[in-house]
Amino acid sequence: MSHAPKPMLPPAANICEVGLRDGFQSEDRIAPTAFKVELINDLVGAGLREIQAVSFVHPSWVPQMADAEAVWARLDHDGDVVFSGLVLNTKGLDRARSAGVKVVDLSISTSDAHSKANTNMSLDDATSQMLDMIDRCLAYGMVARAGLQCVFGCANGEKTPVDRVVGMAAKIARAGAESVSLADSTGVANPMQIKSVLEAVLAEVEDIPLVMHLHNTRGLGLANVTAALEMGVTRFDASIGGMGGCPFIEGATGNIATEDTVYLLESMGVSTGIDLERVATATEKAEAFFDRKFPGTVHRLMLESGSRIL
Amino acid sequence: MSHAPKPMLPPAANICEVGLRDGFQSEDRIAPTAFKVELINDLVGAGLREIQAVSFVHPSWVPQMADAEAVWARLDHDGDVVFSGLVLNTKGLDRARSAGVKVVDLSISTSDAHSKANTNMSLDDATSQMLDMIDRCLAYGMVARAGLQCVFGCANGEKTPVDRVVGMAAKIARAGAESVSLADSTGVANPMQIKSVLEAVLAEVEDIPLVMHLHNTRGLGLANVTAALEMGVTRFDASIGGMGGCPFIEGATGNIATEDTVYLLESMGVSTGIDLERVATATEKAEAFFDRKFPGTVHRLMLESGSRIL
Repeated sequence: MSHAPKPMLPPAANICEVGLRDGFQSEDRIAPTAFKVELINDLVGAGLREIQAVSFVHPSWVPQMADAEAVWARLDHDGDVVFSGLVLNTKGLDRARSAGVKVVDLSISTSDAHSKANTNMSLDDATSQMLDMIDRCLAYGMVARAGLQCVFGCANGEKTPVDRVVGMAAKIARAGAESVSLADSTGVANPMQIKSVLEAVLAEVEDIPLVMHLHNTRGLGLANVTAALEMGVTRFDASIGGMGGCPFIEGATGNIATEDTVYLLESMGVSTGIDLERVATATEKAEAFFDRKFPGTVHRLMLESGSRIL
Repeated sequence: MSHAPKPMLPPAANICEVGLRDGFQSEDRIAPTAFKVELINDLVGAGLREIQAVSFVHPSWVPQMADAEAVWARLDHDGDVVFSGLVLNTKGLDRARSAGVKVVDLSISTSDAHSKANTNMSLDDATSQMLDMIDRCLAYGMVARAGLQCVFGCANGEKTPVDRVVGMAAKIARAGAESVSLADSTGVANPMQIKSVLEAVLAEVEDIPLVMHLHNTRGLGLANVTAALEMGVTRFDASIGGMGGCPFIEGATGNIATEDTVYLLESMGVSTGIDLERVATATEKAEAFFDRKFPGTVHRLMLESGSRIL
């Protein structure tokens, strides 16, 4: 058998918790502000240092996020935790700014069909709007983190040309975004594709951190994390217990689970600073509130074995 | 960011279906012989060319496998499918031989504590017994495939010294086994560990094929498949829908799912010869029989979306 040499992994990686946004917005039950704040505080206590806490989208579109300002006002902004809010248009940006948000997550699709269906904008228009929002953020003294969706293809089988991803990432980087997030929005990516796309992006966009936003819809989430780690990426989005997911398919898993990702990283000697048991306890609280079991494996194992069998 | 060059993957890989044994023996409900045979035939129709169909263990220990001879007698042995039976001691080997089995799977632990708890034998005694059974298989004209359990550690936190694994694999290879299977019996392995252990084993044991038997208990199953593939391994055990698993933890996932593994391999251009939809349809039949949903993701997505959203 022939094989490639073992790659070196980075010594540490950072997880941004997105369950409060990407997970909570997928649930039918709307969580009260106090519950969200309690859970966020639990996660801060567990060592999470990046939390996407809210989304400034129109409440009629995503009623689960209607209390963004109220949640934001009750967070402890004096510590070392980076809280952020998702913003999809200039109206949302104005709301975030008024709320005192310092770090916003912007996001557009790399699929023309997906962009038109979701936002009624062509790719060019969506890109222009994002560049304009990055400009505004800089003018307002805010940090803009830019995300690209469907980077590895769409669930409908549409492929995303790598050149397009590279071109959009380069524009975003030049505009002054703090980072570029590459999202596998429907969990279609595979590890070799992760490496190919990252290789292409890294060749063109050198000086801006890359973030991976991965879904586990087809079970490949952690294989894809590993591939990205091997390419030097050290920032990952994840959600407690793997909550979130595909609203139109019962049981389809969503984001990679925070616990599973922490377990993967720590077991390979990549430090996260996160206390797994405390995260699992927070996840248990969310499962009780939403009255369902999230698809992650490590929190389930910890909670149901009654011990830290890891 | 620095990164290792992308490894080349093998053009094809082979999956051995172990759900009928590793999965069915974990279920409370005992499947009738006819159902097992029907499902095996479905899987053959789906392109599976290696199926571990039965286990010759004592019926009082694993009553789900009590009909091993009856299942075996009803399989179509004239085609190109390799059927095998698990054998754990000489009495089982005699049963397999009498039943006309040509390929047996032998298995011992690499953990002394695990070996003593499960078989009341020390590692040395278990190894001697396996070497003796390989000898007998060769004398009987049977093919012996040898498996090592707990290669990557135990759920109790016990580490397995790599030297021990290498030494046992070398003895097995010298004895004339057809292959050596390395099992992550409780799903504790991580991708870097897979690469390290394989590197050590491959350096010592060159001429015998390696098989990976991986569990997805902590969500790392497919990350570990990818790591093994990158090291040149092309044989993997998997179970339909990921059935099987940890009998003492409700909801803990078991073997890597056949569908998820096929999806991973095919999406990276590694040919398996397996028709995913037909496997998922067989899995649906097994889920209906056992009245529970198995933890795999790809079959769930295919069945519940009503289409091949892959």
